[in-house]
Amino acid sequence: MNELPLGFRFAGLHCGLKRTPQKQDVAIVASDAPCAAAGVFTRNLIFAAPVALDRERTPSEDIQAVVINSGNANACTGPRGFEDAKRMAAIGAEALGLRPEQVLVLSTGVIGQFLPMDKIADGLQRTAQRLDRTPEAVEECARGFWTTDTKSKIAYRSFEANGKTIRLMGVCKGAAMISPNMGTMLAVISTDAQISPATAKDALSAAVDTSFNCLSIDGHMSTNDTVLLLANGKSGAGPLAMPELAKFRSALQELCSELSYAIADDGEGATHVMNIHVRGCATQDNARQIARKIADSPLVKCAVSGGDPNWGRIVSAAGYAGVPFDPKKVSLTLQGVQLYRDGAPVEFDDVAVSQLIKETREVKIVLTLGEGNAEIRFWASDLTAEYVRLNADYRT
Amino acid sequence: MNELPLGFRFAGLHCGLKRTPQKQDVAIVASDAPCAAAGVFTRNLIFAAPVALDRERTPSEDIQAVVINSGNANACTGPRGFEDAKRMAAIGAEALGLRPEQVLVLSTGVIGQFLPMDKIADGLQRTAQRLDRTPEAVEECARGFWTTDTKSKIAYRSFEANGKTIRLMGVCKGAAMISPNMGTMLAVISTDAQISPATAKDALSAAVDTSFNCLSIDGHMSTNDTVLLLANGKSGAGPLAMPELAKFRSALQELCSELSYAIADDGEGATHVMNIHVRGCATQDNARQIARKIADSPLVKCAVSGGDPNWGRIVSAAGYAGVPFDPKKVSLTLQGVQLYRDGAPVEFDDVAVSQLIKETREVKIVLTLGEGNAEIRFWASDLTAEYVRLNADYRT
Repeated sequence: MNELPLGFRFAGLHCGLKRTPQKQDVAIVASDAPCAAAGVFTRNLIFAAPVALDRERTPSEDIQAVVINSGNANACTGPRGFEDAKRMAAIGAEALGLRPEQVLVLSTGVIGQFLPMDKIADGLQRTAQRLDRTPEAVEECARGFWTTDTKSKIAYRSFEANGKTIRLMGVCKGAAMISPNMGTMLAVISTDAQISPATAKDALSAAVDTSFNCLSIDGHMSTNDTVLLLANGKSGAGPLAMPELAKFRSALQELCSELSYAIADDGEGATHVMNIHVRGCATQDNARQIARKIADSPLVKCAVSGGDPNWGRIVSAAGYAGVPFDPKKVSLTLQGVQLYRDGAPVEFDDVAVSQLIKETREVKIVLTLGEGNAEIRFWASDLTAEYVRLNADYRT
Repeated sequence: MNELPLGFRFAGLHCGLKRTPQKQDVAIVASDAPCAAAGVFTRNLIFAAPVALDRERTPSEDIQAVVINSGNANACTGPRGFEDAKRMAAIGAEALGLRPEQVLVLSTGVIGQFLPMDKIADGLQRTAQRLDRTPEAVEECARGFWTTDTKSKIAYRSFEANGKTIRLMGVCKGAAMISPNMGTMLAVISTDAQISPATAKDALSAAVDTSFNCLSIDGHMSTNDTVLLLANGKSGAGPLAMPELAKFRSALQELCSELSYAIADDGEGATHVMNIHVRGCATQDNARQIARKIADSPLVKCAVSGGDPNWGRIVSAAGYAGVPFDPKKVSLTLQGVQLYRDGAPVEFDDVAVSQLIKETREVKIVLTLGEGNAEIRFWASDLTAEYVRLNADYRT
């Protein structure tokens, strides 16, 4: 089932960026052949050095590896940080027998500190020796992405095209905090499909738009967020055109959605994933704006963690999203139970719905407007005292 | 010092909307003469019945009282809720010997439940008998606004005009939660200045813009937010024109700022008030947008509650505010200590600054951009496990 794309190898190990010796902090995703590559990056004006580098180097038709480190975000590190990111790519390239420009870089962790380049160099050289296609190698690679993540986030998809199997595999880390600074979302998606850089960019942007961009742990956009897609064409299916290309886009979208869900599920301190479905909107952007306000409201998040079917908080969050709608046409269900219909609350069994929330990890919120047919699905984690503890009290 | 505006009387008592018998849940602010009155209201599309009523009735030159209840927000209650708000005004008017249209209404508390009109009627009739100008009457009135507030929020200002003293007095409640629903900010400002309804509206909007609109506890805009200004002209100073009008506007702005600060200070679970000063912006709106992102970031809030001088979270929150700026011209001080200058972190004594945060209730964050001369001051409370407990676990 979970088959790796042909021609890709993976590895990760500990090189000393994280304090705990067992924890992987450097990783490599490498292709045997040049890839079409594209990236989607944080929109934060304060962005990290690797983001600057990868933005320069993509889209491309000649990328062959991504070198990753955790434990240090190489953000807010000025010109020296940018030189370090370039050197990190060059070190990875040398270890892999590539040209420096064929390598992309991802970093996550503490911001405002320079990378210890000796450790990075040692780590990348040793990681390059371990590249493999075993489940162990993939898991070690995934752990090299971790900050406060508690589980690896890996997803697979495949489909048939031109008589061949095309495979996609994605690995990412959570939008979680790392002491002492902000969180980061990183993902690398490898595929053996044969597509152009422009197609890669277009398909990735579309997939991210309804997956990673429909996800919020705490509403704080990081300096390092990056999703990369590498396509090496090794499936042997030849260049993808329609209708196979549509299958590819669909598989990519599903894979990104699965990873997004996994991030929300592993949000810091989270006890529930909120599956927020906003529909009946005039545009998808409207739906997304409303969903984001619901997802980011600390009151909604607290209600969910407390098992409280608090329709007032949800409906009122929609009301301040800046999207015009008729309040009389608003309806809401929670865990399938109608709480609000046509702009007014309906009677429901408070205790029973509370129990439904408490019993399940995933809380389904469906908000329906009467403005049109556009909709969106959005994931978020709830808010707990544990989140506050992780982000406030880590010094004590 | 703290003199009440002439011609206003105050009262509050318990009528049974809150469970605890000692807690005031109904209040009246009444003037001996008709007032110019204006209001500023929530921008939430889902707004409560009293908001609808007060919007209809202001600006006005013939308002003489505000009747207030806590414990029930009369929100999401449909046409019946609107009729109840009208009846509440009429009951107050009858008790005070006024016409129904001369009375405004404020409600806060649980949403989605109909007002118990018998209790309201009884409460307002008894409250009208107690109207007075004593400190005790003012305090009882202020407590009639409370939900989860832990202290009354009352502010005074006065200035000289045309040889007379003009007085302003404001009372408000906190933007805090009330079981089981969202919080509300309500304020009534009384003054013996003589101004037109249009001037009242204009001055109030300007004052709110840089006070209550520069305040965030948890980023969740309520259904009931209302600030009312009543001016009865009883000072005897005659109609205010420039330059006295400028003095009035300034006093009103200061009073609103003091109340806003008091709300942030009494935010649910708060251990710090964040005083966020954003300057060097192209426009004041830009400054406000950036300040709001900093104020609403759970990561910044947690850093403050944890005593962590985490410049990375603050600077990166500014970076996603949607305001264009040159990152190389950004500087930041915290408690007066420079943490970040011209787009790069500077060395500072981490432990000492952490201690400075822990030792004070008010944390001063000054973020300076290099885009212009516009600025704003914004207040927010920090985020603690106690906030989560109050809003998640109140059922258990």
